[in-house]
Amino acid sequence: MASGARHAEPPARPADALGRLIEALRRLPGVGVKSAQRMAYHLLQHDRDGALQLAHALDEAVHQVRHCERCHTFTEQPVCTTCLDPLRDARQLCVIETPADQAAVERTGSYKGLYFVLMGKLSPLDGIGAHDIGLPVLLERVGDGTVQEVIVATNFTAEGEVTAHVIAQALQKAGVRVTRLARGVPIGSELEYVDLGTIAHALVDRR
Amino acid sequence: MASGARHAEPPARPADALGRLIEALRRLPGVGVKSAQRMAYHLLQHDRDGALQLAHALDEAVHQVRHCERCHTFTEQPVCTTCLDPLRDARQLCVIETPADQAAVERTGSYKGLYFVLMGKLSPLDGIGAHDIGLPVLLERVGDGTVQEVIVATNFTAEGEVTAHVIAQALQKAGVRVTRLARGVPIGSELEYVDLGTIAHALVDRR
Repeated sequence: MASGARHAEPPARPADALGRLIEALRRLPGVGVKSAQRMAYHLLQHDRDGALQLAHALDEAVHQVRHCERCHTFTEQPVCTTCLDPLRDARQLCVIETPADQAAVERTGSYKGLYFVLMGKLSPLDGIGAHDIGLPVLLERVGDGTVQEVIVATNFTAEGEVTAHVIAQALQKAGVRVTRLARGVPIGSELEYVDLGTIAHALVDRR
Repeated sequence: MASGARHAEPPARPADALGRLIEALRRLPGVGVKSAQRMAYHLLQHDRDGALQLAHALDEAVHQVRHCERCHTFTEQPVCTTCLDPLRDARQLCVIETPADQAAVERTGSYKGLYFVLMGKLSPLDGIGAHDIGLPVLLERVGDGTVQEVIVATNFTAEGEVTAHVIAQALQKAGVRVTRLARGVPIGSELEYVDLGTIAHALVDRR
């Protein structure tokens, strides 16, 4: 047990500024020690302006970016511009996992309702439960009488499907229509190369 | 030409802190717009401490890390600890491309001489010439009478080989021995899977 405790100790803080920079870069998702080294060397050798710009942008974002009080997406105001837009249809609420997903839906130009951003997905193994994705807030919002349809647009991954299922169940009592994005064959694809699960779903949901 | 000039204009600076953070993250090598988005969302959602730590580490490194006056590697002192080490053999000088390569040689534990770090490689197409890799400084250093052997350990890539060739030619008049790392079959590999150029070199350099 003693050796286990020793293993759990954090590594000593590097004594030099370059080592500390490499260590800090490793906290970025998808960046291992080799990439962090390469990034640090590149910034110090070729792009010190970029390094200072990044330092400033990080500092600024941490202190200014917060969550929209209504939809939970990132914003610098108490309420984001989408939620404040009087031209959007407040009767429709699209529930999505991340701001990146929201941006993808926005780019289609075919949705004029509002959003609720979970900022994650249910993942009990990582300790992410209903409270962490704002489910109580969503229920309260849907219960205010304005929302008539909730479009659940979580990802079609295992965790996204579970999240969609839990949300749909929780909303059953609220008396609103709950829909899910259609599953089917992507535009431009040949059936031969589409996976079987997708074709099966497209068959079931044919219209 | 007018449209060409318009294309060359930098994109407008994003109006929000999140957009500026994503833009700044894209200056890291190997980071595209999707990765930058993912990094920004991750830091703001899950690791604001890490973001502040990175901002501080960048700032600190930019202001404290400079180049060693003797070997050009990154250091916070005028001269790096390796160059100051009295136990190292000043008669041998290993010329390498980057501090990462230097670290790799150091980890072998089988080299006790000093280093000269080019901080790059000759690349005329990118405008990197002999002056940028410190060739004049290297020649001056080798001419001081202490150095007896220069081990050229640039990478075995096209640009690394050209760099090695140019360095060897420039050092010819200095009256020192110029050697190159041996090319050959890597430890643990089976000949069947080794590329032909490597086997050919290993045959020529057999001993």
